[in-house]
Amino acid sequence: MTAGNGAERPARTGRRPGQSGAREAILAAARARFADIGFDKTSVRAVATDAGVDPALVHHYFGTKQQLFAAVVELPVDPEATLRVIEAAPLDRLGETILRTVVAVWDSPAGPGVVAMVRSVLAGSHDPSLARAFLLEVVLERVRRRIATPQDDGRARISLVASQMIGVLVGRKVIGVEPLASMSAADLVAAVGPTLQRYLTGDIGQEPVSR
Amino acid sequence: MTAGNGAERPARTGRRPGQSGAREAILAAARARFADIGFDKTSVRAVATDAGVDPALVHHYFGTKQQLFAAVVELPVDPEATLRVIEAAPLDRLGETILRTVVAVWDSPAGPGVVAMVRSVLAGSHDPSLARAFLLEVVLERVRRRIATPQDDGRARISLVASQMIGVLVGRKVIGVEPLASMSAADLVAAVGPTLQRYLTGDIGQEPVSR
Repeated sequence: MTAGNGAERPARTGRRPGQSGAREAILAAARARFADIGFDKTSVRAVATDAGVDPALVHHYFGTKQQLFAAVVELPVDPEATLRVIEAAPLDRLGETILRTVVAVWDSPAGPGVVAMVRSVLAGSHDPSLARAFLLEVVLERVRRRIATPQDDGRARISLVASQMIGVLVGRKVIGVEPLASMSAADLVAAVGPTLQRYLTGDIGQEPVSR
Repeated sequence: MTAGNGAERPARTGRRPGQSGAREAILAAARARFADIGFDKTSVRAVATDAGVDPALVHHYFGTKQQLFAAVVELPVDPEATLRVIEAAPLDRLGETILRTVVAVWDSPAGPGVVAMVRSVLAGSHDPSLARAFLLEVVLERVRRRIATPQDDGRARISLVASQMIGVLVGRKVIGVEPLASMSAADLVAAVGPTLQRYLTGDIGQEPVSR
């Protein structure tokens, strides 16, 4: 993944070595807030207050709230670039675009770090509420907003997308189920892309849910 | 799950208490063989030889080779009854039948044991080659035989089915992604059944593979 916004991206390490205590305090405060009340309800201001620092310092060290979250869950990649590609896809190609871009990350040098994180969540050594919040509130929330209608909030749809993507990740990278594990990205997109597209915009046989 | 063949089923515990050493020796020998060479190539006779017992004793303690395998991976349910229901389903309802019967096991009193086993495999504390062998050679092999044609050995298809089933299990029972986690079995079958059916018998966009 290339970010393409290097100029705006805050330095994560190397600067202000004397303040690493503040950095750790911010991470600890953010971890506690995100775990307690989730991503949406956590504000950078509240995290800064808990950590005893100015909100500007939180942004200086970590960037956006989403990037702070990625640091808390020790995500080895910045999801922003991937999410931007997905958001730019036409609605009728959203399924294959999600699959293609996410599989590209898993197959990249950052992939083993992602797999290690997923493994530790599944094993219970990470707090599953953080993994859940990350998956639903950060990654999939922006997809959900694109597919939501007044009649259907899209939550069932994105949880189904999550199930298939988790299964592809685990089958390919954790258990190593062949031939899935060595299937080319093109074959994977041909097989699984239509599944995701149906979950997102097709008939999934449910009563619509609105909020 | 009810087995319906209680008369044929060997007692697993309680008999011959003096011979528990033999039982452990059989389990250890079977574990080593299954991990080394997989389910297919392991014979009950070879396990018995390694354990220094008569093959009849292996059958007495554990039943079939498949039941021995289930004991080795500490599977909390006997997959036989579930597999029989799946094998009895008409080909065009195979997808929904797999989903319905497997979800019934996960939602049964045996479910937490299955989830714990899956968790420990994903965490790496069980040998993944055993999990892979169990999934592909025992559970899915019998489904594969039903869908295989001279032009398509069905392996890609069942690995795709495995990916979606793993994702539903992890999303529902391990991470707890809502509303998937609390979705009724009927809604789940309506949403995910067609995915499995397409993977099994529909167009998955791949070049057919034969062996």
